[in-house]
Amino acid sequence: MLSAADRARFTIVLVGARNPQNIGAAARAMRDFGFTDLRFVNDYAAAFDAAQLEATKSAVGAADVMRNARAFANLAEAIADCTLIVGTTAIGERTLTQKILALSDAAPSLLTELRASDAARVALLFGSEKTGLTNDQLSHCAWLTTIPMFAPEDARHLSMNLGQSVAVCLYELSRGGIEGAKDIPRHTATPPTAEDRERLTQLLLDVMHVTEYSRRFPANAQEPLVRGLVQSLGSDHAEAETWMGILRQVLWSARQK
Amino acid sequence: MLSAADRARFTIVLVGARNPQNIGAAARAMRDFGFTDLRFVNDYAAAFDAAQLEATKSAVGAADVMRNARAFANLAEAIADCTLIVGTTAIGERTLTQKILALSDAAPSLLTELRASDAARVALLFGSEKTGLTNDQLSHCAWLTTIPMFAPEDARHLSMNLGQSVAVCLYELSRGGIEGAKDIPRHTATPPTAEDRERLTQLLLDVMHVTEYSRRFPANAQEPLVRGLVQSLGSDHAEAETWMGILRQVLWSARQK
Repeated sequence: MLSAADRARFTIVLVGARNPQNIGAAARAMRDFGFTDLRFVNDYAAAFDAAQLEATKSAVGAADVMRNARAFANLAEAIADCTLIVGTTAIGERTLTQKILALSDAAPSLLTELRASDAARVALLFGSEKTGLTNDQLSHCAWLTTIPMFAPEDARHLSMNLGQSVAVCLYELSRGGIEGAKDIPRHTATPPTAEDRERLTQLLLDVMHVTEYSRRFPANAQEPLVRGLVQSLGSDHAEAETWMGILRQVLWSARQK
Repeated sequence: MLSAADRARFTIVLVGARNPQNIGAAARAMRDFGFTDLRFVNDYAAAFDAAQLEATKSAVGAADVMRNARAFANLAEAIADCTLIVGTTAIGERTLTQKILALSDAAPSLLTELRASDAARVALLFGSEKTGLTNDQLSHCAWLTTIPMFAPEDARHLSMNLGQSVAVCLYELSRGGIEGAKDIPRHTATPPTAEDRERLTQLLLDVMHVTEYSRRFPANAQEPLVRGLVQSLGSDHAEAETWMGILRQVLWSARQK
């Protein structure tokens, strides 16, 4: 269960993102999973302003994330207060010498660090849309993580949309549950009992008899076969009752003739 | 491990999506995880055409997904050949009577169905950006799944961006590995051994002695403390060697005086 305290110690750093829509999308993903600390490293200030506008248009809450976001002139400043820096990579053509973990293997390590001390702050770095993180930017990272993607033979460059990457990473962190999430409504339906099914079987046999189905197709009207037919009839007690009502009505109608 | 055969039997159905960028983003997420069967239910044909254009602009591969996508006039036609239909929901204000599973609990059931028979085809339905799936559309589904999101008190409507939802769902299905993914490079560094660390400890003690640090700060120069200092020095054998080289040079330099 990802707690509010865990989330408060987690920072997303967008390094050199240029497309305001992508920045807005990252902010929206953060809103969706309850994260709030967004930082930019970007000398292209217009992108920041445009992203703020975009976030306001696209979703309440994402606008809050954007309003609290901070821009830094360089990466070292952006991560100065962080205790663990992890970079994301799509594993392109470059030879990477750092340790790389699949996201599902990385998440437990990130959570362990978040909970190691009150002073812990974990930064997850995302590179620019075009190039990803540069070697210089990667050297600030303790290790790297990647979202495993399908790589067709003919794909030279494979990279994920920035907003989608952020969403998938935050989903993985929240996968064990989020403090403050809406409860998933419990399915309140009562499953049909064996007795419900047996009553249905007998009713269906009656219907087969009265409508003369049994006489025309005796092979299909054997009780074990009919019991099998009824197994999937009605996913809960109420639906089983509805089926019984329908069959009783058919019986009544057939007997009127 | 999600196989190519599993992926080939999995269908994404966008019901009433209107924003071409969202449709293009869904196609791109499919490309990223190696899925190919995209279907629309949409009376708003212009969105489909515009999405095709968008996909072409945004990513090679997503354009292929869009080219193979099919538009249907109604939901029943779109899912006619599917054997399991599952709907996605953000759990809004509505009372939903169907069974709802968190995505991480839903994925194993989807995979089981995909592998149940050669004739299996699983459709995952996404509703329109504004309203989600309507009650009528939900009635085509065997059950529902949801991506758990943080829900602040003041949030009336919570919904995730369509492309991000698709990406997160496909990520969850692929989480155990994807056939055809690039291998994650193994970290080839040799971890430093206890012997490396012991040699570093002795070298550092020599440096402390020669530079007279030990005389000025004897409390800090006790061997067990110095051994502790060295624990985190060098994340692999090569880095430990580099540290030893630096310390030897310091010794040499100090002895010149």
